[in-house]
Order: sequence, then structure tokens, then C-alpha cells
Amino acid sequence: MSKFFTERFSALVPYTPGEQPQERQYIKLNTNESPFPPSPGVLRAVEAEAGRLQLYSDPESRLVTKALAKRYGVRPDQVLVGNGSDELLNFAFMAYCDEVCPALFADITYGFYPVFAEINRIPWIEVPLREDLSLAPEDYLDLNGTVFIANPNAPTGLALPVSKLEAMLKARPDRIHVIDEAYVDFGAESMVPFVDRYDNLLVIQTFSKSRSMAGARLGFAIGNAELIRDLNTLKYSTNPYNVNRMSSAAGVAALQEDDYYARNARQIMENRAWTIERLRALGFEVTDSKSNFLFARSERIDGGALYRGLKQRGILVRHFDKPRISAWVRITVGTRAQMEALLRETKSMLEEADV
Amino acid sequence: MSKFFTERFSALVPYTPGEQPQERQYIKLNTNESPFPPSPGVLRAVEAEAGRLQLYSDPESRLVTKALAKRYGVRPDQVLVGNGSDELLNFAFMAYCDEVCPALFADITYGFYPVFAEINRIPWIEVPLREDLSLAPEDYLDLNGTVFIANPNAPTGLALPVSKLEAMLKARPDRIHVIDEAYVDFGAESMVPFVDRYDNLLVIQTFSKSRSMAGARLGFAIGNAELIRDLNTLKYSTNPYNVNRMSSAAGVAALQEDDYYARNARQIMENRAWTIERLRALGFEVTDSKSNFLFARSERIDGGALYRGLKQRGILVRHFDKPRISAWVRITVGTRAQMEALLRETKSMLEEADV
Repeated sequence: MSKFFTERFSALVPYTPGEQPQERQYIKLNTNESPFPPSPGVLRAVEAEAGRLQLYSDPESRLVTKALAKRYGVRPDQVLVGNGSDELLNFAFMAYCDEVCPALFADITYGFYPVFAEINRIPWIEVPLREDLSLAPEDYLDLNGTVFIANPNAPTGLALPVSKLEAMLKARPDRIHVIDEAYVDFGAESMVPFVDRYDNLLVIQTFSKSRSMAGARLGFAIGNAELIRDLNTLKYSTNPYNVNRMSSAAGVAALQEDDYYARNARQIMENRAWTIERLRALGFEVTDSKSNFLFARSERIDGGALYRGLKQRGILVRHFDKPRISAWVRITVGTRAQMEALLRETKSMLEEADV
Repeated sequence: MSKFFTERFSALVPYTPGEQPQERQYIKLNTNESPFPPSPGVLRAVEAEAGRLQLYSDPESRLVTKALAKRYGVRPDQVLVGNGSDELLNFAFMAYCDEVCPALFADITYGFYPVFAEINRIPWIEVPLREDLSLAPEDYLDLNGTVFIANPNAPTGLALPVSKLEAMLKARPDRIHVIDEAYVDFGAESMVPFVDRYDNLLVIQTFSKSRSMAGARLGFAIGNAELIRDLNTLKYSTNPYNVNRMSSAAGVAALQEDDYYARNARQIMENRAWTIERLRALGFEVTDSKSNFLFARSERIDGGALYRGLKQRGILVRHFDKPRISAWVRITVGTRAQMEALLRETKSMLEEADV
């Protein structure tokens, strides 16, 4: 920090994104990207938009907002797009937490939540997942604060059924529940159909995972119109032109080719089941993931050692050197060929370890 | 605001961006966009990048950062790119202001500065421009706080010479001076060459104006490495993947075709001189703008009336209904044909007003 940096943030520990190596070519299974490129319409839309870059993007992002509203069966005033879902999560922390309303989230979940709390100088409470890494809604019932739940959760991959989440909304109508559905398209249930019935529900999704657009930075929030107005107040107070022209156009095009992305998601789910079966056969404990990644550990090899060994062998996975999960690795589900390579190298490492 | 919205921001008044009409086609002279499209290399770069959107952008934005460093004669660790310069300005407010260190800026300047202060709950002091709308550095000398100066200033278009800004840096080495150079490429002097000598200088620029990329959202900060580290701490605590793949690639390509953009800037400056001369001949008072816009008023017609009349005639300019400048309009300098249309319609309005 320079000597000029405010004391407000002197203790801030920023988020560490997964490695994005630019030199060596890895089989990249560390940041939950899609192995499939964007659909042809996305390429065409981006190309067409590039010639108009001299003009500001629409601050209201009307076209992509309308397309999302249509796709999810809500009104446009129930939707807000952002520069990735991280921006919208940050707005949710800003809007619905403060000194007297802490943020509540699991001890094992998206590592950015405590950073969002810190940067906004919001107290937070980590609610431990149960021993089996499941989230027990009843653990939140008597706590005061705004609830943030990644569903499916990361890095565990475990999902709650909407019935349990709805029960939370009903039990505590006095507070907001932010459901972060970044990974929902890989077999979990979405809370979007509930936004009309509950004014204390905000759903956040992204084009990064199932829609192959991590590099475009396009996320969206769906909730009742009043909540979306709240978030807009923050958007227009930080970055009114938050979404660039090309990403908006890409989003509209992707929504017109949803079949392609649904097919890809099914392929990922098949590869997930295929890989889980084989990892379990190798003695791994693997969670029942509803996301595009696996969470696995083996008594035969430590999580850190597996991460480092695979990296040497050209495969990047993610290891979190954190309490309770340091034995585990998180592995993005890619193509069948990528999963075969992962299994081959893992097997070979286990054999070496056994020697 | 919903009943859940934090009281922290209950009095927040968001920024109002200039109109971005999606229906009717206007001659758009209201948001200081370039009338020229991006260069051919930008289109090619964007096209190539679209096929890789499934992968996250490089959180360090290494390629465009390196290209900027080369172009501006600094080291890559002295540069940070952002999702438009608004994001970087917000980081500067976050990093260098707090309860005990207010923000200092002119009463007539970029309208976002007070909003950035509010959203970060930072006190601020508006330092009145002089009667002739010039900024007098001595007015800041005895005030405590971090200085934000748009140079050239908006909406006045007036620029300070670097000698005056350097004197400010010398006089107050104990505080940061943020120089917002969004419009610097249209004839003003940049402070970038001073970043090695002064650790209390942060320069912020953008690809939006002279480089025809308002719709791509790409801004950059240049300062000493410690300041850039400060800003990175905030970036990694809010949005690590803040710049998308396509905009980064477009930025690299634009820097390789700087001649094209320099030629366009010269054309704008010629059109500016041409238009100023003719507006003055019509009796307008016009500031000595060093930017890609004009700031003008006439005793024959009120600023609001001129704005509304031109809009009816298909020309959008910007009017600020604010103390001291409500008589003025801000007019983006476009192509010669656009300027001819502006003059024709303005003349016709004046004639009607005189009847």
C-alpha cells in the first residue's frame, strides 16, 4: 500500500482468482469455464457490434434485458445486467447489508463473499456447513442478517432443492436472500420462478458457465422490480455504462441459441457422471455435484500434492489451502477427452505415490 | 427504494448519463463520442477474440497493459486498465479519500465526482471555478483533501498547462492529485510524463473519446507503481475480471494504429476551430475548448431552449440544468457535415427567436 492509501481498507485481503496462465498450454480445469466455444450467432453479433464501438453502450442495456426477461418469464424491470455476476453480488452486499445488518454465508462457499463484505465494511458471519458439507437452512433461522447462498454451492457442487429455499423465504420475510445461481444450469433447480411471489428473493446468474461467455463478463440479477431499482441506484452511482456493447449483443445472440447451450450442459452432466464413477472407483470421495465441477479427495494423496502433480503433468485444477477443505481439489468438468487425461494422470500419480 | 435497502445510501442521487436514444436517429452531439468508427485492426481483433469467449479474460490484462506501457513510456506496473475510466475514478475515490480526507473538485466539472464521493461516504468540497470558468490552482492550496481535476475540464473544455499542475504537485506533496485526462488528446498537455517524478500524481485516461471505443468500456490509470498496487487491491476486491476479452484485444489493436486516431483527433480539432469561429460570428460566447466538445451560450437564446429546439430538429446536445451553467450548452464536435447541420439549425432557431 502507498502511504496515501486510506486506513479504511488497510486490512483488506483481496480475492485470489484462479490461475489464468498465458504461456504454457494446460488442460484447464481450474476456473469452471465451458470447454465449448460460444455459438455461431454470438460470433456474428460481436462482429456486427465492433463497428459501432465509438458509441456508448445503452446504459439501460435494453435489448439484452428484454431478451433475458422473455427467456425467464419475468418483466424487464425485474432484470439487471452487470459486468459479470461479481459486480451484481457486490451491489447486493452494498444494498442489503450494513453495520446493523451483517452478511450471512457458509464457511465453505464462493471465496469472494467475505471480500465483498470487507470492501463494503460490513460485518459478516460464516455459518459452518455440516460435516458432510451440506448447507442446513435451519442454521440460518435465528441469525440476523442478509443471507447469501451459492446454489449449487462452490466448491462443493452440492445443491439445495427449491422447497428448502422457499421455506427460508417464508420463515424470514423480514430479510433478503441472495441466491447465487452461477452453476444452476447443470442440474440444479432455479429460484427464478419464485421472484414474483417473494419480495425478499434476489437471484443472480451469469453467462460465464453454461453459456460459454466467461471472457465477455455478463451477469444478471432477477428479483422483484423494487429490488432491481435498488441495484440500479448503485449501478448509476458507480458505473452507468457497466456492460459494453459487444457483451450485450453476445448475450442477446446466446439467448436465441439456447438449444446449443442446453445441449452442452447435458454433455457436461454426462461427462460429470462418467468421471465421478471412475474417480470413485479409484477410491476418491466425490460429492454429488450439480455443477460443472467436481469436488474430490482421496486418502491416498493430499489435495495440495494432487494439484501440484497434475499441474506438472499439464492439467490445472483448483486447490483451496483452507481449513476443512485442504484435502480436496475442485476439478472443472470438461470434454470427455479432457476427463480421460485427468483420470490417466491421476491414476499414474496414485501409482507413483503407492510405490 | 425497497424497504430492505440500507440507510447508508438512502439519500444517494445517482449520476444521470446523457441520453442514448434507441429509436429515433439523431445527430448525436451529446455524449462526446467520436464520429469515427474504430480502426480496421480493432474489428479484426474483436472478431478473433469472440471465438475464445468461453475462457475468462486475463485478470491482469497483461497484453493491453504492456501495450499501454510501451505507448506511454512507462513500466507495466505503472498501468491499470478498467471497465471504463469511471471504474478507475471510483477506485481513486475509494483509495485516497475517507472521513478525514475529503475529495476536492470544482463546482463545475464532471458530474460524477460528487456521486463517487457519496457512494463511498466521503465528504467533499466543491471549489468554485473563477468567474471566467477557469480553475485557479491556488484555490486548492490551503484545503485539506485529495484533488480531482478533469483536464481539460468538462463541460467547459478549458485546460490547465502542465506547469500549473506540476506546481500543485510540488506545493502539496502530502496529498494525491488525480488528473482525469479523458479529453487530453484533443490539444491539451498530458501529465503522464510526470508520473516517475511525483508519487502524488495519478493520471486517468480512456479509450472512449479519441480512440473511438466508448462502447467497449476501456479506461486506464497511470501512476507510480505503489499507487497502481493500491488500485489493484480494490480491483481484486470488487471485480478481478473487470475488463472483458474483446475490449482488451480491441485496446491492443487500437494502440497499433495510433496514427489513425491521431489523424481523427486533428480532424476534430479543425472542426472545432471552424465551428467556434462560426458560433462566435452568430454572437455566441464559446470557451477556448481543448476537448472534443464546445461549451457555448448566447444572450439570444437560453441553454434549455436551445437544447430542446435542437432536439426537435434532430440534433442532440447536452444541457445541464445547474447553477452558473444553465445558460450554456455542451456540443460534441463531430464531422464537418454534422457541424454544418448544427450551425444551420441553430441559425434558424435564432431567426425564429428574433421574430
